[in-house]
Amino acid sequence: MAHSSLVAFDLGGTELKAARIAAGGRVERFTRLPSMAAVGEAPLFAAIASAARQLDVENSPGVVGFGSPGVIHPGSGIIVDRTPNVRLAADFPMRDRLERLLERRVVIDNDANCAALAEHEAGAAKGARVSITVTVGTGVGAGLIVDGRIVQGASGGAGEIGHVPVGSDGPPCRCGVEGCAEPMASGAGLLARAREAGLDVDSAREVFESRDAVAAELIDRMVDHLARILGSATQVLNPDVIVVGGGVAQAGEKLFAPLRAALERYTLASHRERLRIVPATLGEQAGVIGAGLMAWQAQRAAAPRGA
Amino acid sequence: MAHSSLVAFDLGGTELKAARIAAGGRVERFTRLPSMAAVGEAPLFAAIASAARQLDVENSPGVVGFGSPGVIHPGSGIIVDRTPNVRLAADFPMRDRLERLLERRVVIDNDANCAALAEHEAGAAKGARVSITVTVGTGVGAGLIVDGRIVQGASGGAGEIGHVPVGSDGPPCRCGVEGCAEPMASGAGLLARAREAGLDVDSAREVFESRDAVAAELIDRMVDHLARILGSATQVLNPDVIVVGGGVAQAGEKLFAPLRAALERYTLASHRERLRIVPATLGEQAGVIGAGLMAWQAQRAAAPRGA
Repeated sequence: MAHSSLVAFDLGGTELKAARIAAGGRVERFTRLPSMAAVGEAPLFAAIASAARQLDVENSPGVVGFGSPGVIHPGSGIIVDRTPNVRLAADFPMRDRLERLLERRVVIDNDANCAALAEHEAGAAKGARVSITVTVGTGVGAGLIVDGRIVQGASGGAGEIGHVPVGSDGPPCRCGVEGCAEPMASGAGLLARAREAGLDVDSAREVFESRDAVAAELIDRMVDHLARILGSATQVLNPDVIVVGGGVAQAGEKLFAPLRAALERYTLASHRERLRIVPATLGEQAGVIGAGLMAWQAQRAAAPRGA
Repeated sequence: MAHSSLVAFDLGGTELKAARIAAGGRVERFTRLPSMAAVGEAPLFAAIASAARQLDVENSPGVVGFGSPGVIHPGSGIIVDRTPNVRLAADFPMRDRLERLLERRVVIDNDANCAALAEHEAGAAKGARVSITVTVGTGVGAGLIVDGRIVQGASGGAGEIGHVPVGSDGPPCRCGVEGCAEPMASGAGLLARAREAGLDVDSAREVFESRDAVAAELIDRMVDHLARILGSATQVLNPDVIVVGGGVAQAGEKLFAPLRAALERYTLASHRERLRIVPATLGEQAGVIGAGLMAWQAQRAAAPRGA
């Protein structure tokens, strides 16, 4: 009998989301609990086991999808670069440990890549051939989808578009890349510049809502730097859709209108002709939906043809 | 009976190359003749038919590979952007016309993409997961290979890495992208700058061979701009190999040594740790080998599993 949904997880620093995901990406059951990732390995795996039981993983087909923060090494499923709020050993063999725990085949990828796959297949970029889902928040990062597949890169580092050397009139980035524009293009950067300028704001979004002339100028500079980054990625990959998510995207047309205008300066005419720049639509469920879609891809690839 | 080789073509402005290509990329028979592409459609197709007869296309399996200059629309196989030395009608349905002529299924892609696939599977990037094959000559263009597949982009424009907005201290590029570094990073640009500076040189390679202090400074600037471009592509795609071809690559370590040093400034440490920068190895046969490998991929995808 064919199962109608797979189990998928989206691990965050504070929360673990889990769901049963149907083949097209529909969320059938959704649960969340404290991830315990910040506490350590044993409590984290207890939380995963608990969510798996809630979702009746025993009555699901062979493959489980897992989205994780950090850089995931393709092939091995090892977390090679952790985020500070996930306390696991260095080079933690996450995929193998999950397979032992869940007694299922597990496919794992970075959470931003999972969110990008979800937007590509079931969200804002549905129908696209090539999409870039960029998150503008503390930094600027992206997940790349080509012909329905996540681009992982040689060592899991594809999509680091925030750190391309496009030049910056702001402070240097601690990444070490000369001309990295991320400190000017991110939400955190916008907030920092606004505070330096004496504005009384608590978030990048508040800067967008401000009617102050200084805020308007800072937004222009931020958008210009973001457009250089997106222009670089556009010439390299020739996407048909760029999806923008993260806190700053909530500014809506106050971000998107000037961003589209600025992209005129930094993209080839041939590459922007049919390019759409749109807000993310799947919100906080994007990661778990993408993890589920990834599991479905693996499930189909493993099945005999026509089955 | 399984056939041991497929027929593949590589069309250039002046020459048409054709070969029988074995499954791993080995060239079994090779022929070349004037392409007649500059004369027009009828003479071009006569040349293709002649080469097909020479290579006994009737006794080859179902798929023929074809590398063409210009931008090829994915899916339809239409040449949407011609190069000046190929005189065909606008939006020429090249794939369909070739299928009618050859009575075979035809897979077609841009010649630079074919060359990149060849270097990835059978040349300088063999064994890589993600490779970028960049040609530095009149301009700076690239073919991108991810997990053994050509990345075409939404409209066939992936790999236009020459026109990323990384900033330039040279003249503006006619592409219109603000901060496009191609006029400083290309071989043609290096030659133009050298002549402006009064050097008596006829090619970019001669600039590399010059012992003049002005030439050394111009090479430094050229390499710095090229490194910005490659740094952008590296952060986006996280390749394990960058293959450099084109006239300038013949300068050997005079190019590669300073290029590797300059890339330290423009790449993330995580992305350059295992990154290799190497010269192309397949030379003038790269295009036809890649067209053959592309045909083999299509042939295998069409065959039933296990066959």
